[in-house]
Amino acid sequence: MPRYALKIEYHGAPFAGWQRQRDQPSVQGAIEDALARIEPGVHTIAAAGRTDAGVHATGQVAHCDLARDWAPFRLSEALNYHLKPAPVAIVDCARVDPEFHARFSALERRYLFRILTRRAPATHARGLVWQVKHPLDVDAMQAAADRLVGKHDFTTFRSTVCQAQSPVKTLDRLDVRAVETPQGTEVHFDVRARSFLHNQVRSFVGTLERVGGGSLSPDDVSQALAARDRAACGPVCPPHGLYLMGVGYPVGPFG
Amino acid sequence: MPRYALKIEYHGAPFAGWQRQRDQPSVQGAIEDALARIEPGVHTIAAAGRTDAGVHATGQVAHCDLARDWAPFRLSEALNYHLKPAPVAIVDCARVDPEFHARFSALERRYLFRILTRRAPATHARGLVWQVKHPLDVDAMQAAADRLVGKHDFTTFRSTVCQAQSPVKTLDRLDVRAVETPQGTEVHFDVRARSFLHNQVRSFVGTLERVGGGSLSPDDVSQALAARDRAACGPVCPPHGLYLMGVGYPVGPFG
Repeated sequence: MPRYALKIEYHGAPFAGWQRQRDQPSVQGAIEDALARIEPGVHTIAAAGRTDAGVHATGQVAHCDLARDWAPFRLSEALNYHLKPAPVAIVDCARVDPEFHARFSALERRYLFRILTRRAPATHARGLVWQVKHPLDVDAMQAAADRLVGKHDFTTFRSTVCQAQSPVKTLDRLDVRAVETPQGTEVHFDVRARSFLHNQVRSFVGTLERVGGGSLSPDDVSQALAARDRAACGPVCPPHGLYLMGVGYPVGPFG
Repeated sequence: MPRYALKIEYHGAPFAGWQRQRDQPSVQGAIEDALARIEPGVHTIAAAGRTDAGVHATGQVAHCDLARDWAPFRLSEALNYHLKPAPVAIVDCARVDPEFHARFSALERRYLFRILTRRAPATHARGLVWQVKHPLDVDAMQAAADRLVGKHDFTTFRSTVCQAQSPVKTLDRLDVRAVETPQGTEVHFDVRARSFLHNQVRSFVGTLERVGGGSLSPDDVSQALAARDRAACGPVCPPHGLYLMGVGYPVGPFG
């Protein structure tokens, strides 16, 4: 059966997350149902990142096996037709080798987290950012973020329900920058690693927001990391500022 | 009575436009109702731009007269509290001279129009851009836009219900540029003038989109302008890509 890689964009709000669930809408379920409309039967697709409820994506990658030999453009058009009106879109599609696995072949996951800092309620950005009413000290947040980059035991920043075998991961990048928009100042976190623990990015951002607001210092973050204790983590921030932006592979499947 | 200038952001989707109407939700009505919650009575506010149904704003300006002497920060906080959950936010507020008039003192209105060019349906940008499925030639669009800048009789680009006394206006700027986003290529139109005719920006963009797609040339746009004939205009484009970004005054009311 020919294998296809799908690059997927979605708005996380209406979904209980990526992963198919019996009684709740999921992104995986929406795409598998669309696949069943074009090739009857049961489809099971695998994705690079199993995003939580409410988390967005602009560059999720999944693969599927189909009986027919689809032209990739035709396949993405057909899936987008059947996905409507759900806010899920196949933004790229490619035929790949049978050895390609969206999850196990991935070498890097790239996440963006957006905080909007202003008093007035968000209008256009509602549901697309985490809004914080006070200004944030980006330099202090970057100084604290630098303490997290590298290979560490990230037990502090890991959900208690995380199923990863080891809490040791290598964080390749955690860049914090201010971005001026017509709606005000946003703080963007560019976070990259080969793989992440459950709730790791939201645990980082929730803790770093405390640094930006002045209630924690970069040294406090170093101590929290060294504690290897979930209780030392700041509050996990809400999901709707988080975006899976892209996935890196040895050879990129898309042109 | 002290006079206040309000800088207002709103999502146009739920509203029949800026202007108060008897039986439909309007942005003006939402703000006047919020004012009545903090100072009982009838309030009538004037705005720089009477945006149409579905049109957004990030920098609309209106003024109001109040009995009490409000600290501007307190006033914007109180209004935002009473505006919830409508997607309308007071993003700035200032005490102004009694001579300040949001509409008649304005020297410049600045609009942005966003087109998203891609095949796959928009998810995060849904309702915030006009989506066009084909690529657009930005250089050709800019060449055509240059034919419109300056003082002209804009009868061709004016709604038949426009109430302006004269169709002669001076267009100060119409810049077209491609902007790369995580969702694909957007085309942004930066449009500035002292004042606009009804549907003028959407008539420009609808016509220029035809140039970008290759069915009209810059010379066709010159001829359409010279015709002074509404029938020579391209299709008026949809409202949900349009944003009133800001208003210029001899002395800016906000700090």
